[in-house]
Amino acid sequence: MTIRDTALQAKAASRRLATLPADVKNAALTAIADALEASAERIREANDADLAEARASGLAAPLLKRLSFQGHKVADAAAGLRSLRGLPEPVGRVLSRTELDEGLVLTRVTCPLGVIGVIFESRPDALVQISALCLKSGNACLLKGGREALRTNRVLAAIVRGAAATAGVPDGWIQLLETRDEVAEMLALDDLVDLVIPRGSNEFVRHIMATSRIPVMGHAAGVCHVYVDRAADPAMALAIAEDAKCQYPAVCNACETLLVHADIAPSFLPALAGRLAARGVELRGCERTRAILPACLPATDADWDAEYLDLVLAIRVVDSLDEAIAHINRHGSGHTEAIVTADAAAAERFLDEVDAADVFWNASTRFADGYRFGLGAEVGISTSKLHARGPVGLDGLLSTKWKLRGSGQTVAPYADGTRAFTHRPLELPR
Amino acid sequence: MTIRDTALQAKAASRRLATLPADVKNAALTAIADALEASAERIREANDADLAEARASGLAAPLLKRLSFQGHKVADAAAGLRSLRGLPEPVGRVLSRTELDEGLVLTRVTCPLGVIGVIFESRPDALVQISALCLKSGNACLLKGGREALRTNRVLAAIVRGAAATAGVPDGWIQLLETRDEVAEMLALDDLVDLVIPRGSNEFVRHIMATSRIPVMGHAAGVCHVYVDRAADPAMALAIAEDAKCQYPAVCNACETLLVHADIAPSFLPALAGRLAARGVELRGCERTRAILPACLPATDADWDAEYLDLVLAIRVVDSLDEAIAHINRHGSGHTEAIVTADAAAAERFLDEVDAADVFWNASTRFADGYRFGLGAEVGISTSKLHARGPVGLDGLLSTKWKLRGSGQTVAPYADGTRAFTHRPLELPR
Repeated sequence: MTIRDTALQAKAASRRLATLPADVKNAALTAIADALEASAERIREANDADLAEARASGLAAPLLKRLSFQGHKVADAAAGLRSLRGLPEPVGRVLSRTELDEGLVLTRVTCPLGVIGVIFESRPDALVQISALCLKSGNACLLKGGREALRTNRVLAAIVRGAAATAGVPDGWIQLLETRDEVAEMLALDDLVDLVIPRGSNEFVRHIMATSRIPVMGHAAGVCHVYVDRAADPAMALAIAEDAKCQYPAVCNACETLLVHADIAPSFLPALAGRLAARGVELRGCERTRAILPACLPATDADWDAEYLDLVLAIRVVDSLDEAIAHINRHGSGHTEAIVTADAAAAERFLDEVDAADVFWNASTRFADGYRFGLGAEVGISTSKLHARGPVGLDGLLSTKWKLRGSGQTVAPYADGTRAFTHRPLELPR
Repeated sequence: MTIRDTALQAKAASRRLATLPADVKNAALTAIADALEASAERIREANDADLAEARASGLAAPLLKRLSFQGHKVADAAAGLRSLRGLPEPVGRVLSRTELDEGLVLTRVTCPLGVIGVIFESRPDALVQISALCLKSGNACLLKGGREALRTNRVLAAIVRGAAATAGVPDGWIQLLETRDEVAEMLALDDLVDLVIPRGSNEFVRHIMATSRIPVMGHAAGVCHVYVDRAADPAMALAIAEDAKCQYPAVCNACETLLVHADIAPSFLPALAGRLAARGVELRGCERTRAILPACLPATDADWDAEYLDLVLAIRVVDSLDEAIAHINRHGSGHTEAIVTADAAAAERFLDEVDAADVFWNASTRFADGYRFGLGAEVGISTSKLHARGPVGLDGLLSTKWKLRGSGQTVAPYADGTRAFTHRPLELPR
């Protein structure tokens, strides 16, 4: 079977998924959660084999940890499915309702996108989470996981497929791709695949965007800032800076550059340096930072655009809120930006004028995450301004359609002025 | 000045437009409407010069009609601006509000996209309408109109720019491009331009999509269908078919293929043929159509995918609603699809299962239009499923951002289980 055949099966299934009742989808989520727990032993065997091969091939310890999918991780995945089940039905939600004229009513309703291709890294829990989000949102999916997780992914896809089928979900909605060639074939199917979600490195996402004519929802780079305003509470600013930099430095919502107002820099920077030295963070500062912290390394121009993903922090002293906002709008990646200040007016200006998916006041950049935002789960974080921006949950997997229900109306009498539109907003159904 | 400089000016202006108060933007719309009416004579002179040159160069009559912008067209444009002024403020609308934890509140609000490049055809009213939509939605714009309307567009851009400035809109937000080379330069500025909207032929839109890395909102092809179900009221079906095909055949929401249920075809098709013959429509039918209408030309496979934009109609007899839906999902362009039937269950299945931006029951496909939908005005019709679908008004020119207001929260205590999220939905502000 070619990948086109696979995608055709998924497309056919997507037509039926689009109108699948909420209770069938929710029953399927329960069935998948139960089946995962009941199959813990089978999953562990496959995962052990993947782990053994990965260890033999010298995979680094953090990647081995990501590859592991057993014990509490299986239970967590099942719990995630049960919480997704509890979210409101996303398909068929009425977003607007307007009477265009007597007996002519327009509604705008949510609907699935159709077929979604997802290419994800080594974590096998991603397969469970993504397929569940697709199912809940009525989309079929073509999934390609990391090569090193192949045995685990095969078992998981079989469990998800089988359990969904017992609940009445039509076959064909979940398809597993296994090779890079298959991914390349999929990326050419712009007549069948409605959206591609690549999760991985920047270069990988950019490569996909450059190669495919299918719309891509990109998991994005994060050059995130914390701006310590002159009216910042120093203890709060220290705690937020430490959390944003150190709590998990390898991720896109970690802070890479700290900006500090000149009025507070002389007292704040030495305290920060002490706090971060204890966490092993390397500091790279502008001239004015180094005048206060002589031991700090000098920052070069490249540092202001760097995504370290490591225990390194660039520091710049600024003279005003305006200068901080201008620096962020120039060097930031539009991901997540935070201000620490007790000055509400300064904070609101920052939230309005900084051009980013997430703008935070007195909170760590690390909160930028679908689960923490209460979206149930996330398929990724988008720095695109179109369609979906920031952490993307079920909403990003939906489109809308306009439904017009009439009683025989034609356009001619409105065009010649015989009839006029009423354009009366109607109440939304509850 | 290079186009990069022009775009930099627009980007700087967009930062200020993003936070411009609603009353300044609305005052500017009034000022522009007043200035257009007060400058009717100046506009007429420039437009006369464009028309004279176009006539001399042999431009076809329908295109001359589109190029004309004087008299009631200026008054209509002014009226359009005043009605746009009356629409609710689109920027800063709160879409969701959630308490993540005590003192940690997340809101999702609408915000402008930034800088929008629009390339439009010969109609100069498009300049007024598009710049006004950009202004109301807080976006800066780079506009390129048809070459044959250059004098008119220069005058209109100057009027819009000057009137907006008197109302307090910062300079630089509206920029006029004049040559194809300038458009090519703009299409390379993916660091400054947030969205490109090409209005024109399919090939033109596809060319732009293939050349630029900037997101493109495409004005789309329309292969629209009317399906006459077996439970259709024949008189209603005739009226809708005639309107959808003949009321304005050159546009994307006109009907190109009519599908008719076999049970009703023997009585319906002869009546349809008579009705459309009177309007000069050429019919091209499947075998079963020609068995009923021997004078009908034979349809080839290419006819099912054709966008005639002319008084030509393809006709196919189908045996079921399922066959009609399958034909439309295979051959339609995802634009606008209509069913005529008295059977509510069949209609609802059609609305749910047909994969198109607009799905209509007992109404002409010609209703697919931003003005008729009550959106105030439209920048185009999108058949993309992402971001905006169907007629696109102000909504398509907006993005969203997440604002998180905290009181010093860090992620660490949530990660180690010391604190838990509340994820409590909060009321939206009215």
